Amino acid sequence: MTGDTELRDRQAMMKAALQAYVDRANAGDADGLVALFAPDAVIEDPIGSPLKTGADIPAWFADTVAFGTRITPVAPLRGSHANEALLVFDVEFTPPGGEPMRIRSADACTFNDAGLITRLRAFWGPGDIEPA
Amino acid sequence: MTGDTELRDRQAMMKAALQAYVDRANAGDADGLVALFAPDAVIEDPIGSPLKTGADIPAWFADTVAFGTRITPVAPLRGSHANEALLVFDVEFTPPGGEPMRIRSADACTFNDAGLITRLRAFWGPGDIEPA
Repeated sequence: MTGDTELRDRQAMMKAALQAYVDRANAGDADGLVALFAPDAVIEDPIGSPLKTGADIPAWFADTVAFGTRITPVAPLRGSHANEALLVFDVEFTPPGGEPMRIRSADACTFNDAGLITRLRAFWGPGDIEPA
Repeated sequence: MTGDTELRDRQAMMKAALQAYVDRANAGDADGLVALFAPDAVIEDPIGSPLKTGADIPAWFADTVAFGTRITPVAPLRGSHANEALLVFDVEFTPPGGEPMRIRSADACTFNDAGLITRLRAFWGPGDIEPA
């Protein structure tokens, strides 16, 4: 564990970033979403799917916005006693040519010292998606 | 990703184990809790604290029961497209000689092929605990 003040500051920084993630997604701000990630970030959404890195990440968030994604947190943000925090949410979106869908999801994120996300791992399985 | 049927079976197995974890905790069944874990399991609760293994684990759940722990899930269980699943909950307990406390927590668990937990990592930070 790190010192108490450093630990508390880190928690606040991580939770502010996850709140910005929600706000920017719901505002359709793809560039703002990408700006929350470190250059070497890795996205695994869902856990068990191929990793997204580099140019995959702006493309991923361009799709997020194009699909009309809306995120609704369903529990307060969880921190940790290290550099990880958790956003628990439902997400609704409409894939191209498809019907509106809802996923019960949670993003487990790891942060660097600058408060940027270095890793995002999304908990949702085949039983956690349904028509919206 | 694994095959669809295998993936769905695994999700059901993981979610049944996490529901048993809640039920056994709330029933004060320490042995039943330990039985959900593989012999080589590692518990990191909270993330960033020293790892618990081997004989630490029965001792941990003996304390869990002794502290009158009650777990309330606050969102449906989340699976994944692999061998990980997530339980999001509030937990209330009373440490020895202390006042009742509530933690907003989430247990990210990894499972082996037998459906036993091999790793439990708990998301909660210093800002996620309060008097109950």
